[in-house]
Amino acid sequence: MLTKDKKILIVGLGLIGGSYAQMLTKAGFEVGAVTRSRKSIDYALEKGIISSGTVDVTRDYISQFDLLVFALYPHIFIEWLEKYQDYIKQGALITDVTGVKVGVVYKVQQMLRDDLEFIAAHPMAGREVCGVENADGSIFKGANYIVTPTASNTQDAIATCRQLGGILGFARISEVSPEEHDEMIGFLSQLTHCIAVALMNCKESSHLVDFTGDSFRDLTRIARINEEMWSELFLLNRDELLSQMDLFAGEFDKIRNAVRDGDTETLRRMMQISTLRRSYFDK
Amino acid sequence: MLTKDKKILIVGLGLIGGSYAQMLTKAGFEVGAVTRSRKSIDYALEKGIISSGTVDVTRDYISQFDLLVFALYPHIFIEWLEKYQDYIKQGALITDVTGVKVGVVYKVQQMLRDDLEFIAAHPMAGREVCGVENADGSIFKGANYIVTPTASNTQDAIATCRQLGGILGFARISEVSPEEHDEMIGFLSQLTHCIAVALMNCKESSHLVDFTGDSFRDLTRIARINEEMWSELFLLNRDELLSQMDLFAGEFDKIRNAVRDGDTETLRRMMQISTLRRSYFDK
Repeated sequence: MLTKDKKILIVGLGLIGGSYAQMLTKAGFEVGAVTRSRKSIDYALEKGIISSGTVDVTRDYISQFDLLVFALYPHIFIEWLEKYQDYIKQGALITDVTGVKVGVVYKVQQMLRDDLEFIAAHPMAGREVCGVENADGSIFKGANYIVTPTASNTQDAIATCRQLGGILGFARISEVSPEEHDEMIGFLSQLTHCIAVALMNCKESSHLVDFTGDSFRDLTRIARINEEMWSELFLLNRDELLSQMDLFAGEFDKIRNAVRDGDTETLRRMMQISTLRRSYFDK
Repeated sequence: MLTKDKKILIVGLGLIGGSYAQMLTKAGFEVGAVTRSRKSIDYALEKGIISSGTVDVTRDYISQFDLLVFALYPHIFIEWLEKYQDYIKQGALITDVTGVKVGVVYKVQQMLRDDLEFIAAHPMAGREVCGVENADGSIFKGANYIVTPTASNTQDAIATCRQLGGILGFARISEVSPEEHDEMIGFLSQLTHCIAVALMNCKESSHLVDFTGDSFRDLTRIARINEEMWSELFLLNRDELLSQMDLFAGEFDKIRNAVRDGDTETLRRMMQISTLRRSYFDK
């Protein structure tokens, strides 16, 4: 369990790492950070979001912490562990914030020292801005926190990870397998981002601004996207994302053919289905 | 010009027709209505949205009005004129609210008596509910009103139609050709509705509600759709909508192939373009 004497290290002090640090410090934990930019550490120290921090990864510093939260790009997360896992305290618990699971969880669990445990989690929150300067724990309020345990996780680690989600202020905490997680995320999040990006790539649309109603704005809001992070997440979830894209392309094509053929019947039936199903999602 | 002694008839007293009636009555005009349901007339009379109304189309009633606003399904609008245009007052002006223009404007202008003039307009406003009971003139606030004149329209009719948009409270009033209108609407509105409908048709997604973030909700809000109206509008704009759908499908396919091939370069470039273009649309 996460008692107040546990020291927590945030690895990667960006928007999400910074928001974790803010909430955990506020909850009374001692929070440290290691990140690449000196400026981020200085900012977080000045704002009291962390009580210590460094840009140098040393055994002395790292070995103090009982819980390590990795808020890095997936490939950097794995590289970091390859280089520095020897520095981590005996028996420490490791968690992450990565948006894709299958391609990360098993690899990390396999490479990790036997006395360490990695329990994966996905905080489904974010903003269109980045950096610790925009850290804001209130983004977790009302959001979902998904824990994705595997057969090699202990009940204690799962419980601690759920507890962490609670301290951070998430509205709903749930558990699904890494595979279910990636299927869901492929559909709900990655596919929708692909659609928004495709729509904005259709035409140089700045002359349309004055004619644009809410529907176009709603569909393209998420077209503002961190291309480095999202291209990596797409490719990490390649097979699942391709299935979801093909599923969507098939339905879109049905509508296209119905329009071409003047098939009012099919159009109406698909609109009835969409109207009914969308009603489940009203908040 | 639309002086206060002009009498205005709303043909079709639903959400949009009712909202027109409400705003025009409030502005001091005498507003009448003809519609299919007795209940809608009674409601509008009781609420003071109209000063007269009927379900019976008679020469006596129709011939009083100087401006007629048709807020009907496109095919009913055309049928109505075929049957009843003889009843309309000499020299009256006719306008509409139809969401597609090319397939309506030329047909109506061609069939109309020589002393009558039809100037087409598209109020880009709506709600997810229908009926005069939901009429609400505030839906026009902040919205776009598009006048689509042809070579056969007079300057006077165009000016009156623009004036009408102003009285209704629209934020922006613009003029484009019926062809430009349909291309724009095909892309901004019809294509986006096709996408939302396709997305909701992909899977029975009610079990995903608890995991759904804002992106999926944003993309599917417009999947609640009046299937009778929208299937008619799609087919009225068939060629243009097919072009826009194909344009989108092509960009979506580029992303799909980049995911399949692990082509980070293409993914990042498309995301950079979408991020840049989307910034024009921030309100």
